[in-house]
Amino acid sequence: MILVDPPTGDIRMSTLILTARDNAINDRLGAELADVEARFNAELISDLPCVNDLVSHIEQYRGKMLRPTLVLVSAMACAPCEDDGVRDSHRVLATVIEMVHMATLVHDDILDDADVRRRGSTINHLAGNEAAVMLGDYLISHAYHLCSSLGDESISRVISETTNAVCEGELLQLANRGNWSLDESTYFEIIRRKTASLCGTCCRLSARFSGANAATTDGLSQYGQNVGVAFQIIDDLLDLTGSQATVGKTLGRDLEKGKLTLPLIRYMSTADDSSRQAMIDLMSSRDDGPAELVMERVREAMTDNGAVDYARRRAEKLTRQAVSALDNLPESAARTLLGSMAEAVLNRRC
Amino acid sequence: MILVDPPTGDIRMSTLILTARDNAINDRLGAELADVEARFNAELISDLPCVNDLVSHIEQYRGKMLRPTLVLVSAMACAPCEDDGVRDSHRVLATVIEMVHMATLVHDDILDDADVRRRGSTINHLAGNEAAVMLGDYLISHAYHLCSSLGDESISRVISETTNAVCEGELLQLANRGNWSLDESTYFEIIRRKTASLCGTCCRLSARFSGANAATTDGLSQYGQNVGVAFQIIDDLLDLTGSQATVGKTLGRDLEKGKLTLPLIRYMSTADDSSRQAMIDLMSSRDDGPAELVMERVREAMTDNGAVDYARRRAEKLTRQAVSALDNLPESAARTLLGSMAEAVLNRRC
Repeated sequence: MILVDPPTGDIRMSTLILTARDNAINDRLGAELADVEARFNAELISDLPCVNDLVSHIEQYRGKMLRPTLVLVSAMACAPCEDDGVRDSHRVLATVIEMVHMATLVHDDILDDADVRRRGSTINHLAGNEAAVMLGDYLISHAYHLCSSLGDESISRVISETTNAVCEGELLQLANRGNWSLDESTYFEIIRRKTASLCGTCCRLSARFSGANAATTDGLSQYGQNVGVAFQIIDDLLDLTGSQATVGKTLGRDLEKGKLTLPLIRYMSTADDSSRQAMIDLMSSRDDGPAELVMERVREAMTDNGAVDYARRRAEKLTRQAVSALDNLPESAARTLLGSMAEAVLNRRC
Repeated sequence: MILVDPPTGDIRMSTLILTARDNAINDRLGAELADVEARFNAELISDLPCVNDLVSHIEQYRGKMLRPTLVLVSAMACAPCEDDGVRDSHRVLATVIEMVHMATLVHDDILDDADVRRRGSTINHLAGNEAAVMLGDYLISHAYHLCSSLGDESISRVISETTNAVCEGELLQLANRGNWSLDESTYFEIIRRKTASLCGTCCRLSARFSGANAATTDGLSQYGQNVGVAFQIIDDLLDLTGSQATVGKTLGRDLEKGKLTLPLIRYMSTADDSSRQAMIDLMSSRDDGPAELVMERVREAMTDNGAVDYARRRAEKLTRQAVSALDNLPESAARTLLGSMAEAVLNRRC
């Protein structure tokens, strides 16, 4: 697999994992993702022009489409004949989950007071915090609305259980802002709930819709959860060590908001007392925004101490676990694609 | 019926509409509302102490419980024998709708940047805008979670259709901030969506759960919608003319945020050009918060011009329409109570 820099404005998973040779399954995935996008837009149409105007800004939030991709490729991997693995219910589910995810992005931007995401203005910056709150609510509401068209109440139950967990993860993270002693187990609890739960649900429900057996369903569920945790570790690493031009959103916000992520947690638990105190002083010295200099010094300290490598190794291990969780699935181009996706999550630069 | 000032901290509908004589149905309603409160609290329990801590602040938002009361009394009014009119599904529905409503209050406080509600600190003031966003999301998520336990997907569909409309109403309101030419029909469109839709759904679904016929269901639905519109007109009037000590939340915020409500819309459409311009100048003269003097002058102008009376008469007419929509229902103590509730909504001072 060759990792390529995506064309400007297109950073979908399907593009991130482009291989050099013509790839039929990747083409099909691209077509399915376009279908999800169309369903997404159709669900959100209002008879009020002002609502449609605001909704049009959501486009800029569309990124890798990791979650719908997880739903769709899981469906392909479950099908005896991959060509007809994706059913209408999978497409609806993929759309619902993307809508939930977009809502969290819109609301996260209020949380994080971020000015830039996906190389464009955030909704809150463009139209005010209040419009961002309501637009996020509009997305959540439509996600449940679409979900309740699936003909099975228990799906709404699973989705809402998942969003309960996502909110808990966010609240646990908020409660630990500025906690310089945050431990790894709490960090993993946070990201399991806020990120991995939704990724796990993508794969688990997709397998269920395909009528997969318990072993396949469990394997895919574990795959999704592990990919989700790895994804968040890398996301946090990019916030610390990435290039803003490549990542396309404001970086250094975790630090600015007192959100400790894995490299910093590792640093704080392994550095000697004086280095730890120096790091706290350094982070407390920033005024209203992490000066590039502070970021640079934090980055250097954590690289030298091995904390950045440590976080990356954890993500690598989770990626391996994700891939081995697929062992029970029959070999197929879709299973291979799931493996490539896990690798792409690990190696992404944006 | 005697309208009484509620005991401090208890402003439930059941208290607002207390009659002088012992009232069996009101006692039963009180017990049912306590049951709804218990279900509400049980649904929100988390294994994370920090989540439970934050959730405990929601108590202060609990007010009149108008919406669960609409569900419960509608159920009683539909039953051939009132004593067993309220089923478990009604209690769950009442809890779901109260949870949706609480979420809108929490998120509205971000919208309105209000510091005081229900005589206590708002969540955003206490724990930050970010915690308020997430807590509102947690409430919405749990509302859908509880709703998807009702055994009928179409209920989730109706609830989410309603929340779609609520969000649209809020967004239409936001889009019309500072629009000094806002017309009545847009104002009514806003409040029909943001307030009346949920009240109408309370009564309509309650009738459906009771197996009521189409005439009863339609009558209750119209009752709920009209009560909802009247409720919002009075709410807007109280923001302008009420006493902060009695109402228990920050007043004058509509004006401060450029939200035109019925009396002001009436004033602007009936005053002569120079009075209208004087009003715009007056409202634009406030700095960061409506000085009491500005409020006083706005209030005076609208009282003298008859705009306050006009708004009140509109609410009175809607209340009469609400009560006549009940004509198709058999006479009962519950039907009488619905009538008293509509009157209480009109005459409330908080």
